[in-house]
Amino acid sequence: MSDTFVVVGGDAAGMSAASKAKREDPSCDVIVFEKGKWVSYAACGMPYYVKGEVDELDDLVAVTPEEFREERDIDLRTAAEVVDIDREARTVTVKTSKGTEEQPYDDLLIATGASAIEPPFDGLGHEGVFTIHDMDEADAIEDYVTGRDPETAAIVGGGYVGIEMAEALSTRGVDVHLYEMLPHVLQPFGEAVAEVVEDHLREQGVDLHLETAVSGFGGDDRVGTVELEDETVPADVAIVGVGVAPNTDLAERAGIELGPTGAIATDEYGRTNDRHVYAAGDCAEATNVVTGEPDHVPLALTANRAGRAIGQTVTGDPTPTGGTAGTAIVKAFELGAARTGIVDEDQAREAGFDPVSVTISASTRAHYYPDGAELTVTLVADRESGRLLGGTVVGREGAKRIDTVATALTSGMTVSELQNTDLAYAPPFSPVWDPILTAAKVLNGKLE
Amino acid sequence: MSDTFVVVGGDAAGMSAASKAKREDPSCDVIVFEKGKWVSYAACGMPYYVKGEVDELDDLVAVTPEEFREERDIDLRTAAEVVDIDREARTVTVKTSKGTEEQPYDDLLIATGASAIEPPFDGLGHEGVFTIHDMDEADAIEDYVTGRDPETAAIVGGGYVGIEMAEALSTRGVDVHLYEMLPHVLQPFGEAVAEVVEDHLREQGVDLHLETAVSGFGGDDRVGTVELEDETVPADVAIVGVGVAPNTDLAERAGIELGPTGAIATDEYGRTNDRHVYAAGDCAEATNVVTGEPDHVPLALTANRAGRAIGQTVTGDPTPTGGTAGTAIVKAFELGAARTGIVDEDQAREAGFDPVSVTISASTRAHYYPDGAELTVTLVADRESGRLLGGTVVGREGAKRIDTVATALTSGMTVSELQNTDLAYAPPFSPVWDPILTAAKVLNGKLE
Repeated sequence: MSDTFVVVGGDAAGMSAASKAKREDPSCDVIVFEKGKWVSYAACGMPYYVKGEVDELDDLVAVTPEEFREERDIDLRTAAEVVDIDREARTVTVKTSKGTEEQPYDDLLIATGASAIEPPFDGLGHEGVFTIHDMDEADAIEDYVTGRDPETAAIVGGGYVGIEMAEALSTRGVDVHLYEMLPHVLQPFGEAVAEVVEDHLREQGVDLHLETAVSGFGGDDRVGTVELEDETVPADVAIVGVGVAPNTDLAERAGIELGPTGAIATDEYGRTNDRHVYAAGDCAEATNVVTGEPDHVPLALTANRAGRAIGQTVTGDPTPTGGTAGTAIVKAFELGAARTGIVDEDQAREAGFDPVSVTISASTRAHYYPDGAELTVTLVADRESGRLLGGTVVGREGAKRIDTVATALTSGMTVSELQNTDLAYAPPFSPVWDPILTAAKVLNGKLE
Repeated sequence: MSDTFVVVGGDAAGMSAASKAKREDPSCDVIVFEKGKWVSYAACGMPYYVKGEVDELDDLVAVTPEEFREERDIDLRTAAEVVDIDREARTVTVKTSKGTEEQPYDDLLIATGASAIEPPFDGLGHEGVFTIHDMDEADAIEDYVTGRDPETAAIVGGGYVGIEMAEALSTRGVDVHLYEMLPHVLQPFGEAVAEVVEDHLREQGVDLHLETAVSGFGGDDRVGTVELEDETVPADVAIVGVGVAPNTDLAERAGIELGPTGAIATDEYGRTNDRHVYAAGDCAEATNVVTGEPDHVPLALTANRAGRAIGQTVTGDPTPTGGTAGTAIVKAFELGAARTGIVDEDQAREAGFDPVSVTISASTRAHYYPDGAELTVTLVADRESGRLLGGTVVGREGAKRIDTVATALTSGMTVSELQNTDLAYAPPFSPVWDPILTAAKVLNGKLE
């Protein structure tokens, strides 16, 4: 058991670990170093701040620094950057405005998160070009949009951030161009979802440029254009959301091993190759519950849960961090799109399965009941075992039904078992056969 | 394999079986006898017809008799009542307007459904007193409400039918009194749900009379009052919805055994004590996936699924009917309420478990995201094994999240496994910890 538990990074994983450790063992000294000023904030909420649905940036903060300090008795230090780990001495070196100090630890959690990837674009430093990787950046975007009243936006990257920012800026009255290098947006969601989302984005007035590489931004100091291979398009504001990379520098310098994904390798308790050093959240790997392999899924629930488990482990109650199914959901204007596990046959083959899959569309409510929406469901299974490997859903309502698929695959259900699961039916909520069951029924037919 | 497959009853279980058998083996003669005129109709939709959200009663018919006959090549005979089964000779006696005939079978499915229980009330035969057990009755209620413009309605029974009809009649401008003998409405949903629903019913202007027994209806031929123990209350229309009983007369007369619930006993393939006689739907038992015991859950999905499986079995592909988790969902004005498995500690103890349970309330969306609703979640588990036994949810949105609980308990998950399941999070759809996960987390804490 830890007498001094030191946490590097004050967001989801870090603060969950700190809070849980202190609650489990009030005698444990829990010290958190956060290099910025924001802690425990909902990065996922930032697009809704820019959109105008969240009034204050502070609303995205779940627990304030004062609450952590006063109510939870956590020694939280903001504007304090851990620059070095001495694993032999079990100390970290911390840099603050006042200088540098050493802090001993019994157990250490590295929860340094991830950063937005900055592609080698010309003009990335122009005023009006943003990534959206932290609260200050979200604030800056909102300021810029309010102050400059841009006519046209260039969004680079059709992932979560790109789609959510397209909605946000479009709602603010900006004419949005979305550039995606790949043939489809939302690559991790598979083609069936992408096609529905793409149609919807176009319906909503987004100018979608698929298979289109951006090389940079033009303008004098301030962005004025986006540069494509053979075209220059006006852009008064630009958002670059081409993915995130785990922040592993500190760990690597201390000899902490990375895994195959490039994030920090961890065991089932979140331990690194040093038994006194843990890693969790966007900087760390987690075990994929479908493949059993290390995966890097930088999402909030995985971070929170792993942090919480590590807080238990370091205070004497060894608790597995739980795996990840890579479950994700995203709002695209009026649509919800969601994924879990393995979402297409190519992915399944790469993971060593012999895949069978189906895509069906069905109403979210009884056919005669008002306001039902079409839900498109894809399920993927392994032919030999019949095991469910994953799936996707997309539609104007019902995207959270992905949770049924996530639960089924986490428990190792076969498609036949899922088909026989007693899901809830009443006309306002579902057809007799929920769309997930219909998909399972059709897929089971293909498996027989 | 069946050359002649005879089905008694043309609704969910019967028509699912007939359709599946014919699809699997087009050479099989599939004959369905239905004593009424309606087949394959959504009884669950009837309240919404009365409410005015479904325009035509015909809209509730999923597949018409003509489609069954012409497109599916099923020999469907309506207004044809099976009055006797001769198991020795393998024939049924069928009564139609033209007389009586014998029909041989190789396999027989009894899908005679259930009927509304008619309590021994005075004045039950008065004009304006209805049960809502079939389409003609739904039609009659709608006619009566439209023609008589009742000011006050007495609804007897606070189950699905009572709650849904309260909403329907209230929406039609009728002043609704709901009478329930028990201390709470929606008894199968447990107290946590009932309390939320009761508050909401009152908010919506329903006059709720709990622990109040009705003894009958007064009036001259036409209902004018409802009679309580020590009070007489005006009522211009009355709906009696105090439950349903399986239609087992035909089966019993033929020596088909009933189970402990009073419905027809079946094995995992839906077979009765006669290997050529199957039973499915509201007249039959199904195996409860939590207790492993026979259960009588007269709901549409169980009926459809069992019918379909029997259609496969009789055409040479033995297929288990699947169990039931007793999953159910009901709309009560603006609320959704849902249940699955075992919903409270008393029930769990009766089934031989050592129960632990929690009830929590949490938002359906991120705290800062607009229009989230409070969802109240109850989960019940077995202390020793940690196994999830069931749960309920109730709220203005998110009631379908019960499917996550249903899937988890069907697969035999422990609470800890559910807590570690990777459910979908994004601010518009869920807090980081979905309310189901929060409940699992709290319950897991009590189990440790």
